[in-house]
Amino acid sequence: MKKPIGIFDSGVGGLTVYKTIRQYFPEEDLIYFGDTARVPYGPKSPNTIVEYSKQNARFLLQQGIKTLVVACNTSSAYALDYLRELTGIPIIGVIEPGAERAAVQTANKRIGVIGTEATIRSNAYTIAVQKLVPDAIVFSKACPLLVPIVEEGWQDESVARDIVSHYLSYFEDTEIDTLILGCTHYPLLNRVIQEVVGNEVTLVDSAESIALYLKRLLPEDSDGRAGTESFFVSDNEDKFARISSRILQTEITQLKRVRLFESWFAD
Amino acid sequence: MKKPIGIFDSGVGGLTVYKTIRQYFPEEDLIYFGDTARVPYGPKSPNTIVEYSKQNARFLLQQGIKTLVVACNTSSAYALDYLRELTGIPIIGVIEPGAERAAVQTANKRIGVIGTEATIRSNAYTIAVQKLVPDAIVFSKACPLLVPIVEEGWQDESVARDIVSHYLSYFEDTEIDTLILGCTHYPLLNRVIQEVVGNEVTLVDSAESIALYLKRLLPEDSDGRAGTESFFVSDNEDKFARISSRILQTEITQLKRVRLFESWFAD
Repeated sequence: MKKPIGIFDSGVGGLTVYKTIRQYFPEEDLIYFGDTARVPYGPKSPNTIVEYSKQNARFLLQQGIKTLVVACNTSSAYALDYLRELTGIPIIGVIEPGAERAAVQTANKRIGVIGTEATIRSNAYTIAVQKLVPDAIVFSKACPLLVPIVEEGWQDESVARDIVSHYLSYFEDTEIDTLILGCTHYPLLNRVIQEVVGNEVTLVDSAESIALYLKRLLPEDSDGRAGTESFFVSDNEDKFARISSRILQTEITQLKRVRLFESWFAD
Repeated sequence: MKKPIGIFDSGVGGLTVYKTIRQYFPEEDLIYFGDTARVPYGPKSPNTIVEYSKQNARFLLQQGIKTLVVACNTSSAYALDYLRELTGIPIIGVIEPGAERAAVQTANKRIGVIGTEATIRSNAYTIAVQKLVPDAIVFSKACPLLVPIVEEGWQDESVARDIVSHYLSYFEDTEIDTLILGCTHYPLLNRVIQEVVGNEVTLVDSAESIALYLKRLLPEDSDGRAGTESFFVSDNEDKFARISSRILQTEITQLKRVRLFESWFAD
């Protein structure tokens, strides 16, 4: 029996990672979990991000996965060490693969990063880049409105361009030659981001790097059978199905809602 | 012993309601809960909105409140009946008071409503207005990006104006004379909304109406002592303290984080 690869994200953004993994691994069984009941993670506190990430990981571990891909940048920035305490299976975040690729791409060692509030606050990309290129200069900018823009489906509206320009004006005069898209939602704004920063800046998203990393990690496990897929969300299956068919350019069939129960108490 | 009035919202927006209630009731003890770990509610499904609202209500009921004010429009649109099953104390939502005030304000019986995706989808304002003014024509428009704009503190940026204009262009040629701000975050965008719709349109927010409604409901309970206040949030106390001091124009002292535990299972 093949064991599946588990992938989680705070919502639909991680499907950009899912899609690339599927291209590289047509025979692997994949399970995706999107925490649509609690998206976005970006404005939340580290404690809460860690707590939610552990709950997501536990759910996927219950499904018998052999490897866990944390497609959410915010979770990757805060929760990897805590998740590794839960299990002995390999756990891969999106930060290091993205940083690696940027380190290879940059010629002038001036690198920009955009991400959610929490990802940027964590400094995770700066630390990861400077581990590889100690004299790199990293400029970081939080762009909290870009996730709602994508969730709203406004990628092609003029308002999206206004907001992207507003945020990216931060990089004027920094002379960056590489910009890390430090959030799985941002590749969906690729075109407008590229227009705003200009063609001399290379955009880096981590989906491709993470797939290559997985390729090194996982032994060939071919039985000639196409991999299965199942999707779980914590809310709004219909909306997820709609947005995912746009991202994956195919309808998803195996989609289930996972219910959650909570109890409260004051500290 | 006075019993407190409980107020909950998905986040900081309900503080606009809290502030007005405090002005009308200087001697009442008030407890506010903001579900900042799971904000926003607007894009979520009815089931999840009901579930979260019940959890919030249970937490406040444990504090011995005598009345519950549901300051969140999205919760008010879906959860009131379910909350009334939990308890015999009076429960007040924001929809009916807002609809009442709009019914009194309008001269031409053409009323606009803006709110979150879920609030608009529920049709709750249209139903509440037409109960009072059966031949009223109600035009509704979901504005999902306005909550993140306010949470981002961008009320006074030109991007806020662009986005508000983008949404409100929907009301051109509708000849509305009254616009209901169907989300507790929106009064914080009052100025720009008024500029965009023009001075001939009256803006209605429900904070004032809800306070007047409470005034009819609650017996005078004066002991000459100033009311106490306590604030609870499910995440990010620091951010809440910062934004709330801007909204309330005073520092809050009694603020605590409420932790939550969750478990998952597949249906």
